Amino acid sequence: MHSGKVIAAKKIISSHIHRTPILRSRLLNKIANSQLFFKCESLQKAGAYKIRGATNAILNLTTEEREKGVVTHSSGNFAQALSLAANLLGIPAYIVMPSNAPKVKKAGVIEYGGHIIECEPTLEAREATAAEIVQTKKATFIHPSNDIDVIYGQGTACLELLEDHTGVDIIVCPVGGGGLIAGSCLAVNDMNLNCTVIGAEPFEVDDAYRSLISKQIETNQTTNTIADGLKTQLGDKNFPIILDHVDSIIRVTEEEIVDAMKLFWQYTKVIIEPSSAVTLAAVLREKLVFQDKKVGIILSGGNVDLQNLPF
Amino acid sequence: MHSGKVIAAKKIISSHIHRTPILRSRLLNKIANSQLFFKCESLQKAGAYKIRGATNAILNLTTEEREKGVVTHSSGNFAQALSLAANLLGIPAYIVMPSNAPKVKKAGVIEYGGHIIECEPTLEAREATAAEIVQTKKATFIHPSNDIDVIYGQGTACLELLEDHTGVDIIVCPVGGGGLIAGSCLAVNDMNLNCTVIGAEPFEVDDAYRSLISKQIETNQTTNTIADGLKTQLGDKNFPIILDHVDSIIRVTEEEIVDAMKLFWQYTKVIIEPSSAVTLAAVLREKLVFQDKKVGIILSGGNVDLQNLPF
Repeated sequence: MHSGKVIAAKKIISSHIHRTPILRSRLLNKIANSQLFFKCESLQKAGAYKIRGATNAILNLTTEEREKGVVTHSSGNFAQALSLAANLLGIPAYIVMPSNAPKVKKAGVIEYGGHIIECEPTLEAREATAAEIVQTKKATFIHPSNDIDVIYGQGTACLELLEDHTGVDIIVCPVGGGGLIAGSCLAVNDMNLNCTVIGAEPFEVDDAYRSLISKQIETNQTTNTIADGLKTQLGDKNFPIILDHVDSIIRVTEEEIVDAMKLFWQYTKVIIEPSSAVTLAAVLREKLVFQDKKVGIILSGGNVDLQNLPF
Repeated sequence: MHSGKVIAAKKIISSHIHRTPILRSRLLNKIANSQLFFKCESLQKAGAYKIRGATNAILNLTTEEREKGVVTHSSGNFAQALSLAANLLGIPAYIVMPSNAPKVKKAGVIEYGGHIIECEPTLEAREATAAEIVQTKKATFIHPSNDIDVIYGQGTACLELLEDHTGVDIIVCPVGGGGLIAGSCLAVNDMNLNCTVIGAEPFEVDDAYRSLISKQIETNQTTNTIADGLKTQLGDKNFPIILDHVDSIIRVTEEEIVDAMKLFWQYTKVIIEPSSAVTLAAVLREKLVFQDKKVGIILSGGNVDLQNLPF
C-alpha cells in the first residue's frame, strides 16, 4: 500500500527543499572501521529533515484546506519546519509548544513566521490545545511523526542517500516519534535495495526498543536524555511499518551521545544535535555490526542551543 | 609578473584538494542587508584553506627536493595542512610549533603524519629552530604565508568563488600573515573582474591596517586576540601585492568576532574559527559599505578547540 509513495513525495517536494550533501570523513571511517556516508539534514532548510514531511503534508492538502492553515504540536524541529514550509507556501501555521521548549527553537518558529501557542509540557496538554485550534481556526492538524504524508516526506532524505550510493549495506536512523525511520524503511523498499535499517535510541528513552520486542507501542516513564528530539513515542501509523522493516535498535548512553556529537563536530566541522549523534554513537558502540560495511547515516538536524553545550 | 599564476596553481592542485561549497543564508543576508556568498574552507581537507598553498608549494619542488621533505613553523592550521599535503604526496614534513599552541592543533599535526619539533613561543625561536632542521635534514623551508607558491595556492579559494559567482562586487578576506589576501587579490586579477578586495582584522592585531597606511610592514606589540591565526605579520613577498590591490582593511573588536562566529554557527550549522569570523564581523560592523552588494566571504577554517569555546 505504501509502494512508490516516497519517490512520489520526492517529486513534489524537491523544488522546495535542499538536496543536502553527503559527507565522508577519512578519520571517522578509520575509527569506525567501516565506510560511513553521512546524510547531513542539519544543512537542510530550518536545520532539520522535518521540512520534508511538513512540505509533503501541506502539498497534499486541498486548496481550501491550505487556506485555513495548519496546526501542530512539537517540542522543536517540526515546529520550525512547519512554520517555514507554511510560510514558503503562503499559508498560516499555528504551533503548540511546551512552555519549557528550548529558547532557540521558539525563536526559530517566530523567525520562520509561525504563530506560537504555549501549553503545559505534557502530551495531554499539547493535544488538547491543538484540538482547540483545529476547532476555532478550522486549520488542519498535522502530526510531526504519525501522519502518513509526513512519513513519506521524511523518507526522502534516505531516498536521496540511496540514489547517490546504491551500494549502502545498512541505514542507521534515530528513532523518536518514528516518522523518519518509518519513511527510511519505505525509501529502501521503493529503491528495491538489499539494505538493512537499524534504529538508534538513547537508553533513557528506549520505548522503541521495547516496542519492537513487545510488538506493541511502549511509552517512556521518564525522559532524562540530552536528545530532546527523541523523547516522543511511536504512533499507530508508523509502528506497523517499523515492525515490518526495522532490523534492530541499538541503545546508547548519554555519554556516548555527547562523545559522538563532539567527535563529529571536530572532524567534519558540521554541527549536529544530540538527537542526530545517537546514530554515530550506535555505530561506534557496536563496531562489529558495521565492520567493513557501507553505512548510510541519517543525521536528522543541527538545532542546538550554543549557550548550553554539553562540552 | 604574477599573471595567470593562481589559475596555474588551481590546475595542479585541484585533484588533491576539495572544491569546497559556497554557502548562502537567507537570514544572514537579511541581517547584513546584502547578498553573502560564504566560501567554506572550514570544510577543506585538514579544516582550512592552508592545504591549497602547501600542496602548490610541494608540487613546485624538484623530485630531489621533495624526497628530503619540507619544514615550516606555524601556530596552527598551516602545520596541519603541510603535514597532510606532504603525507598525501608521500614525503616527510617537519613542523616547528610554539610550545603553547592549542592542543587540538598539535593533535591534528600528529594525526596527519607530521613530525612536531617544539620551540619557545617567539618568532625568533621558531625561525632558529626551523633553520636548524633545514641544515640537518636538507629539507626545504616553506613559509606559511610569505612564499610565492603558497600565495598562488591560497588564491585558488577565491578563484573558485569567483568562477561560481562572477558577479561578486567585493571579496572580504581575513588578514594574518598576508598569504590568503594576497592570493585572493591575484585571483581577482586572473579572472579580470571588477571586484574590490577588503581585508578584515582584529583591532588587537591591526598590523596590516597600519601597514597599509604607513606603506611599510608594521608589527604587533601585543597579540591579545581570540583569532589565533591572525597574530602573524605581513611579509616582503605578499605585502607589495596587498599594497597594490587591497582597497581597505576593516578592524573588528573581540566581541564582534565572537558574536559573528556564534551567529554563523547558529544559522548555517557550519563551524568556523574566530580567524574566519572576523570577515562576517567586518561586514556586520560596516553595513553601509556592503549594502545591496554581492559579497564573497573567504571563511578560512574551522579548527576550534571545542573544550574552550568563547560562548
